[in-house]
Parts: sequence; structure tokens; C-alpha cells
Amino acid sequence: MEPVRVGLLGLGTVGGGTFNVLTRNAAEISRRAGRGIEITRAAARDYDPAGLPGIEKISVSDDAFSVVKDPDIDIVVELIGGYSPAKELVLEAIANGKHVVTANKALIALHGNEIFAAARDQGVMVAFEAAVGGGIPIIKAVREGLAANQVEWMAGIINGTGNFILTEMRDKGRNFDDVLQEAQALGYAEADPTFNVEGIDAAHKLTILASLAFGIPLQFDKTFTEGISKITAEDVHYAGDLGYRIKHLGFTRRTAEGVEMRVHPTLIPERRLLANVDGVMNAVLVQGDAVGPTLYYGAGAGAEPTASAVVADIVDVTRVMTADPGNRVPHLAFQPDALTDEPILPMAAIETAYYLRLCAEDRPGVLANVTRILGDKGISIEAILQKEADDAQVPVIILTHVVQEGRMNEAIAAIETLDAINGAVTRIRVEHLNA
Amino acid sequence: MEPVRVGLLGLGTVGGGTFNVLTRNAAEISRRAGRGIEITRAAARDYDPAGLPGIEKISVSDDAFSVVKDPDIDIVVELIGGYSPAKELVLEAIANGKHVVTANKALIALHGNEIFAAARDQGVMVAFEAAVGGGIPIIKAVREGLAANQVEWMAGIINGTGNFILTEMRDKGRNFDDVLQEAQALGYAEADPTFNVEGIDAAHKLTILASLAFGIPLQFDKTFTEGISKITAEDVHYAGDLGYRIKHLGFTRRTAEGVEMRVHPTLIPERRLLANVDGVMNAVLVQGDAVGPTLYYGAGAGAEPTASAVVADIVDVTRVMTADPGNRVPHLAFQPDALTDEPILPMAAIETAYYLRLCAEDRPGVLANVTRILGDKGISIEAILQKEADDAQVPVIILTHVVQEGRMNEAIAAIETLDAINGAVTRIRVEHLNA
Repeated sequence: MEPVRVGLLGLGTVGGGTFNVLTRNAAEISRRAGRGIEITRAAARDYDPAGLPGIEKISVSDDAFSVVKDPDIDIVVELIGGYSPAKELVLEAIANGKHVVTANKALIALHGNEIFAAARDQGVMVAFEAAVGGGIPIIKAVREGLAANQVEWMAGIINGTGNFILTEMRDKGRNFDDVLQEAQALGYAEADPTFNVEGIDAAHKLTILASLAFGIPLQFDKTFTEGISKITAEDVHYAGDLGYRIKHLGFTRRTAEGVEMRVHPTLIPERRLLANVDGVMNAVLVQGDAVGPTLYYGAGAGAEPTASAVVADIVDVTRVMTADPGNRVPHLAFQPDALTDEPILPMAAIETAYYLRLCAEDRPGVLANVTRILGDKGISIEAILQKEADDAQVPVIILTHVVQEGRMNEAIAAIETLDAINGAVTRIRVEHLNA
Repeated sequence: MEPVRVGLLGLGTVGGGTFNVLTRNAAEISRRAGRGIEITRAAARDYDPAGLPGIEKISVSDDAFSVVKDPDIDIVVELIGGYSPAKELVLEAIANGKHVVTANKALIALHGNEIFAAARDQGVMVAFEAAVGGGIPIIKAVREGLAANQVEWMAGIINGTGNFILTEMRDKGRNFDDVLQEAQALGYAEADPTFNVEGIDAAHKLTILASLAFGIPLQFDKTFTEGISKITAEDVHYAGDLGYRIKHLGFTRRTAEGVEMRVHPTLIPERRLLANVDGVMNAVLVQGDAVGPTLYYGAGAGAEPTASAVVADIVDVTRVMTADPGNRVPHLAFQPDALTDEPILPMAAIETAYYLRLCAEDRPGVLANVTRILGDKGISIEAILQKEADDAQVPVIILTHVVQEGRMNEAIAAIETLDAINGAVTRIRVEHLNA
């Protein structure tokens, strides 16, 4: 089957990320989608080809309108951002019968009602997973995964810049202005930070989430928005004294009287998961009447995390264009004829770190013998904890670095033969994870 | 349009929950699905009608095979569990051209390859979101939301019983056997706890996750499984001393040599999100090459959380049966003609708790005046923090209980008129959330 042909509008951070993810993961993605996906055209005023290996193979124009009108394009991916000409381009693409994928929250929050109506009239798809929560598939979760529920409320940390600033203020006792300057230097905040720190970006996203949760039209102008620029280091400190953290929260709830939609600095009890979402990460907590609380966490911005959501939408559209509806999504994520027979590793071949607990006799040289055995097997030690003697027995706890389990089995067998070691060695595996 | 007709196999915990969620949320669900969904038949040996209001309106049989063969049934929902007769019922339903929704992880992990092939041959859908992570839409997230990524690894707390036991052991220094007995008394653990505490249930789920992540056939027999029954209170304690928590983790990773699939007790650094998923809650952390880490958290078991996933699958199937493919999922989750004009509340009408910071002069009676104003407005105080005097100024921090914002505005205006209060009152809203 011919590949699906994508026209990419914008080769900035997210556009470049989308180009790179689709290029790098082309084989894996077509195993999932059941069809190749090719960016055949792109539009950008200026861009850096150095960061886009393979870009020389496609036609890059500075005329985005020529892409949305091109009869050879199946899906238009709008990653220019802002209201105009993004809106005109999206409507023109729809008018030309193209499916549209966009990451543009401002566009959807303000003009989504009009864009969706146009798409329905033309029978094309408009997908916007990347508009909220970057790479977190939160729109799919609410729209499909939680479809059984009456959503009661949603609370989200949905602006990474603001969360980075508040995290730094708390961790280091710094002032808002000071951290903002650093965020700008690091590239987390724009030269004009208003959209991020005054909550406008978060309000765009909250507007979308409220519509998905409650089945109401998009109403950005009714979303209350208060920024974080007036939060002081002392408020952050006092909140901590009381057992709270200050987060810039988007919050929406349905009450008997109506729907609350509001973005503002918010104290959250410090033991809540949302209170521990730090730095540039995002998370959304959804309370459903059947499921209870569910939380979705991940990178809310950045080139490849946002591209992850954009490409997921492209795969969604491709699956509908390609498969019979009932087999739109393959049971095991990949097409049945694209499953592989990769070997499953036996435990002796897996690699992990270990916690070991030994029961040693309290006499000299025991630890030297144990560590020699580990060293001989190439196992390095991260920490040793020797507890107080209990009778003549000393519990010794050892944390190791990562090693192949087969070697660890040999080391444990050797340790258990030592006279001064009583009983079996307790072994629990350790994973450090990264979030 | 005629409602979709569902035949429900099983009226136990999950079957009952599914009946209740579909009944209670019928209106909201049909606004999302674009069509009514009705349970017209059920099969159960015995059940308690007291907990199932409305069950008297449908035909309940003790012959499940008569339901899967009934020509008037569109979707068969298998919530009996176990291998047999669940497998025979599912295959018979498929042979009769029914779509199938199941929560049965044992069935999918062991017989999924065969069941999916039969479904493809018959052109029917088989959905199994509830098989992993209860109400968390983790299968949809991996299969669709993260379709752009090469998944690098996944780590999950995917058995609530085991996590409850380990959480109690850590929080209270208790022994495994002791906590297991309590879990059984609370109904979190079965009389025969083997499937839960020896990791078999988690291994079923991990087998499914590994296939979704890496595009390999289901291979339950190759998943390494080690339970938590040998974890001692002292290991939990020593792990804590070293800055770790012990969790029963399902872990799968693709390496150059092959795929690791393993379920075993695991030390995790205490600051990681997974280390803080406590009690019966579940969570899955997925590392994708584009998106980085994303985490999905929620109730992994229980009547209505599991029903949430079952009903989401029923909605998915109904959407495909009903809509043209491109409009399978409405843009705003609800059908365009089912959006409502619920009012958006002005901020004066919203209800929340507040953090107030006042700058008071250090003289008698000031606090009495402030608390009198709050009391007059019906605002009750949760905590007051009076900091040391800085010159003649004292910062006073007040946490209030929930109140309507309009009243708080009036109270703040009144407080600001007090002679002994300098400058504006700082006001930050407080949300307590629940996870």
C-alpha cells in the first residue's frame, strides 16, 4: 500500500521534533499503523537543516498555503502556532479535504468550535492530542479511556515553565524574577513570558479539558486566569511550613450550579502526587464517578515529547484511513503480521542492580572475603550497611551496581560457601527508574 | 437509532459494577457514544439483586452459552474470569459474530494469540482494557497514545493486593503473614492469595504489556515470576535506611539481546513516583524514546474502577459500530449535538479553601478583629500561623475551610479596612485533591 503523505507546516522545535521522530522510528511506526507514513512536503520560513537529518530529501517551501492545497498531501500537520495564519491554513486544509493534526492549543481553545464544524462538513479528521500536556495522551484518556464516567473534576499542572519556576522557588528559596531570568536563559521561558507565567497558555489547555470532561462548547473567554508572577518566596516558605506546596493549577469542576474553569496558583497538600510533579513536568488528575482518581504524568513540552503526541495523532488518522474500522487498532498494538520473534531473555541474562542481605559472624575478615568474591565477578558495590551485632551475628546489607544476573548467581553461591556466612543470602533486585 | 445490545456474562464484583455504571451513567454515556447502550441479557449462577437496582428489568439466565449464541446480542462482555469456560464462551461468541469485551487477564495472557486470530477471521472486535491496571486506560495509552515511540521499558505496580501488603509492612513495620490476614479480612486478598502474592496475576498483566510495547506474541510461560511472600519486615526496614522502598514490580525492557519480562520484589529510590504509589493503587511507568517517561496512575481493581475500563471498551466498540470511521471519537468527547450550555460559574460563585497572608501591626486585638470578620462571613479557620515580629509588623498566615469566593472577597475587603492591617491581603486558593 502507498504510504500516507504528510505535509508539515513549521520546522521549529515541535516541527523539527516531529520530522525526526517520524524519520527515526519509521519502521516501528509502520508496524503499528499498518502503512508507511512519509513527510513529503514541509513549509518553513527558515530552519536549521543541521538538526534535521534527511530533510534534504523533501521539498521545503516558504509558502505554507501551497502545501495545504497540494492534491498529493493526505494529512496536514500544523505546527506553526499562534492564531494567524494557523487558523486560515487549517481551514484551507479542511476545505481541500485534508485531515489535520495540530499541536496549537490557542487555536483550538479560541477557534475549535468553528474548525470542528468545518471538519464535520468536509468529512475530515482534526486531531489535537499535543495541544494539552505535550506527550501525555491525556485527550485520548479523557475522551475514550474514561468514557464510562461522569467526570467530577480535573486538576492539572499544564504549563511546564510555570512549574519549573515554582519548583526552583521552593527548592532554593529564590524569588520569582530571579528564577524567571534563569528559565529564559535555559530556553524554558520565552523572551515574552506572559503566556506562560500569567496562565494564558494553561487557560487554553484548561478550556479544552473542561469541554472534554463535561460536554460543553469551548469557552476560553470564561476561564478565570491568574498568573504566578505575584507569588513571593515567603508565601512558598509559609505554605511549606503548613504542609503545602504552591502549584500553578488548572482546575475545572461541575457543580449543580454550573462549571468552574479556573487557572491560578494553588496550595496542594505536600503528600499529593500533583504536589510532587516538579520541574518542567506536567500531570493531570481526573476524578471520575466510577474510576475514582486517575493521574497522567509526563513531559508537557519539548521537541520530541510534543512530537510523540503529534505522531500518535498521525498514526490514529492513518489507522482510520487504512484499516477496516473494527481492526483500526491491532490487538497487540502492532499489525498481526508485524509481530516479531525477538527472544525473551532468561533471568541469568538480565541486568539489574541488587540488594543483598547476609548474616555474617562477627569476626575479622568476613567482609573482606565477601567483597573479594563480588570483585572477582566484576560486581561493584554502591553501598554497604553493617548493622549492630545481634548475638554473634551481624546483618550486612550490600547495594550493588548493575550486573548480569548470571554473575550475581555465581557470586551468591560462592558467598554462601563461606564459613562465616550463615544461611542463604537474601537477594532483592533494584531498579532506579527515572521518574 | 436502536441501542446497542449487550450480553453480560457474570454478575460478580466487576459484572455488578459494569451493570451499575452503565445504568447510572446511561445518559452521559450515550452523549459520548452517539447511541444508547443497553444490557438486555445477563448470565450468572447466583447474584445479589439488592446491589443491582434495575436488574429485575433484564433477563438473567444461568446458561451463559445461550447468551453468546443469542442473535439479538451485539456485544458479549465476559466477566466470569478464569480460563474455562471463559475461553469457550469467548470463542463461541466470536464464532457467532459478536464483538467481545473482557477483563480477563489470565485468558488474554494465555490464550490471546488464538482469540485474536479467531476475531480477525470473523471480523469482530475483542477489547480488553480492563485486563491491565483496572480503571487506568493503560492499554489505550500504549497502543495508541504512545504509537510514535520505540518503547524502551515499562515498570508497573500492577497488583493492588501485593501493593497494599507492602505498603502496610513499610508504614507499620508489620510482617507479611500478619498483613496478609488483614488483607483477606478486608476483602483485598482472596482466600487463596497465590495469584496475587506470588505474582501470577501481575505476570499475566506484564505479559500483555510487553506484547503491546514491543510487538511480540503473548508469551506468559516466559515471564519470570517471584512473589512477595518471602519479604521480611527487616528487609523493608533496611531498604528504607538506604533510601529505597520495596515494591512488587512488573518490569519489561527491550535490549539488543532480547526482551526482559519479569515480576519480582524490587527496591525503588524513595523519591520516584512509583515508590509513592501506595495501598491498593496501581501505576505504570512507560519510557518511550521520543516522549521520555510517562506515568499512568489509578485504581487497579474494584467493582467500579474495573467497570470504568469495561464500559470504555463497550463505548469504543459502539462508536465503531455506529459512526463513520473518521468521526468515531467526537472532537470534544461528546457528540456535537449533545453539547450542553451549562453555565460557566463566575469566580464569585466558586468554592474553595484559602491561604491568606496579612501584614498586621504587633498590638493586641488585631487577630481578634480579623477572626471576627471571617466568622461573620461564615468562614471557618483551619490553621493560623503567626510568625515572629519583623519590626512592628507581624506576618499572619490563615488557612480557611471551603467557602464561596464572593464571601471571601467581602471578608478580605473588610480586613483590609482595619487600621492594624497594612497593605493588601495576599490570597492563594487551596485545593486538597484526593490523590
